[in-house]
Amino acid sequence: MALVIVDMINPLDFRGGAAVLPRALAAARRIDRLKQRLKAGGNPVVYANDNFTKWRMGFNEIVAICANGSRGADIARLLAPEPDDHFVLKPKHSAFFEAPLETLLAKLKTRRLVITGLATDGCVLATAMDAHMREYEVHVPRDCVAAASDARTTRALELMKTAMDVDVRASRYVQP
Amino acid sequence: MALVIVDMINPLDFRGGAAVLPRALAAARRIDRLKQRLKAGGNPVVYANDNFTKWRMGFNEIVAICANGSRGADIARLLAPEPDDHFVLKPKHSAFFEAPLETLLAKLKTRRLVITGLATDGCVLATAMDAHMREYEVHVPRDCVAAASDARTTRALELMKTAMDVDVRASRYVQP
Amino acid sequence: MALVIVDMINPLDFRGGAAVLPRALAAARRIDRLKQRLKAGGNPVVYANDNFTKWRMGFNEIVAICANGSRGADIARLLAPEPDDHFVLKPKHSAFFEAPLETLLAKLKTRRLVITGLATDGCVLATAMDAHMREYEVHVPRDCVAAASDARTTRALELMKTAMDVDVRASRYVQP
Amino acid sequence: MALVIVDMINPLDFRGGAAVLPRALAAARRIDRLKQRLKAGGNPVVYANDNFTKWRMGFNEIVAICANGSRGADIARLLAPEPDDHFVLKPKHSAFFEAPLETLLAKLKTRRLVITGLATDGCVLATAMDAHMREYEVHVPRDCVAAASDARTTRALELMKTAMDVDVRASRYVQP
Repeated sequence: MALVIVDMINPLDFRGGAAVLPRALAAARRIDRLKQRLKAGGNPVVYANDNFTKWRMGFNEIVAICANGSRGADIARLLAPEPDDHFVLKPKHSAFFEAPLETLLAKLKTRRLVITGLATDGCVLATAMDAHMREYEVHVPRDCVAAASDARTTRALELMKTAMDVDVRASRYVQP
Repeated sequence: MALVIVDMINPLDFRGGAAVLPRALAAARRIDRLKQRLKAGGNPVVYANDNFTKWRMGFNEIVAICANGSRGADIARLLAPEPDDHFVLKPKHSAFFEAPLETLLAKLKTRRLVITGLATDGCVLATAMDAHMREYEVHVPRDCVAAASDARTTRALELMKTAMDVDVRASRYVQP
Repeated sequence: MALVIVDMINPLDFRGGAAVLPRALAAARRIDRLKQRLKAGGNPVVYANDNFTKWRMGFNEIVAICANGSRGADIARLLAPEPDDHFVLKPKHSAFFEAPLETLLAKLKTRRLVITGLATDGCVLATAMDAHMREYEVHVPRDCVAAASDARTTRALELMKTAMDVDVRASRYVQP
Repeated sequence: MALVIVDMINPLDFRGGAAVLPRALAAARRIDRLKQRLKAGGNPVVYANDNFTKWRMGFNEIVAICANGSRGADIARLLAPEPDDHFVLKPKHSAFFEAPLETLLAKLKTRRLVITGLATDGCVLATAMDAHMREYEVHVPRDCVAAASDARTTRALELMKTAMDVDVRASRYVQP
């Protein structure tokens, strides 16, 4: 089982970012706890992060920028990647699109994904949909995702559960 | 502008198919009208259809099977492809996944898609998401899609409108 | 192990098709023998065939057209697919590009491919390269491929062997 | 027109790396000249580089490692990316596979690629093949590529020219 953290390293400087912030921060705390629990059991962690069209930057540089003075600084510091975490930079919503997630997951020998992060109805949904099409087993814990409003998160979770058989129970039900 | 008709050639023999039928039939009538209007203006039509894991069958054979005695027979007859229509067979939800839609659209020289068919929260959503990531302009007319319930269609349309800037106005607003 | 037959159902009406014909016919006889041997052992066969930009046609229609009066008719009749064979239509050179080969191979539960057909330095090479990148084990038996000249086949085989670790020994060395 | 530089930032620590070194260094000098000429004309440069399964590293870190004490240090210093150059990290041979090259090229609004680097019969060939399938116009200047032997470079160039209509004339014929 791999924990995928989508776009949590984020300046949150887009339109609506202020509304996302408190929800993302609450999700970040749960993701952090889940991350520690899963890593203690030997499960790998993959940051799947937007490159923010910073085509010349690596992930560490993006982390540094976000952690210093951006709206998302608290989250970037809380969820700062550790040396044994992996990452993939993605140019668009889905972490499977023009990004090396599939090759990485093959190396990690896992077909089970816990997808967390933001936005629930954007990059999380796109990544879950692509995982579902590739026949990965998908869990999107409802307390580890965020969007611009709770209604948007609820809508996306209901859709994933109903149309894609995604497990959307809270993170305490994640069983590695 | 290309009209994409997703999975309307369909035996509807899956769990929940009976609930989809009346909604799909209503959508089929609107898709048919939209199809005639768009074709009169010279716009191409692409059937993007599941192969139903019938790996040995072509689209015409799938049309023939669906049109004869299946639950989806009325729809398959109403929307039977004409000689100048195109099709792509897809193995999974999105018409962009392991299917030649992108190469076909390049040949048709269009970046604008009207995506119709079913299910709104399944293959239509997956296709719209993939089109959005590839920066096509997307219109999903709300009266030309169907799902197992009206609530599921509404939920998926709201999500596409809110999170992906998809135009979800009814088919009469489709302007080629 | 799956036997992949690339573009052997072919009108051979392209520039250079006359030069390909005798080589393709010789390869077809060996592919046919290999096919019978592998099928006797329960190994699946996948035709990966160009759609020849006939976007409205299924594989059976393409077989019928090629088998009747085209330059490739003898080959199409010799290698006519049987009811339990599979096929994927591809829009470009590689059978992995915008075609459902990967999903089909997952269903067939195989990671070992024997790639045959034509042209050795075109679609066979592209398919072998894509299989190699996806970490399939690849065998391209040197007596089961053809190109516009023997030199072109030799060059492509040498490249595959040297740069991609492809097994290029003759078909009698194929061990399911 | 975009200049694509494949895997030139490279520790050359693989089997055969010593044989590649002098050829790669000669190619690097020509690539550098071509790069300056093309940039002077406003053409973008894209480094498409292996991540060497260093899944936690960005491109700048890879450049730093290669430039300090590796077998490829001279090349990495000569071709060190400038602040306005772009890069994509790729997990496998082709720069189009699980990497954001296509989205980047769309942003750069170019359909013409000059592909350089190494190895001619490996990542350069795979990238050229994928570009060809996506209908980019491709030039692989024969003096700007390298492999483990001159014979391997010649073989791959002949194949690209013959089977894929790639322009393989020397870099002085590259016309932006």
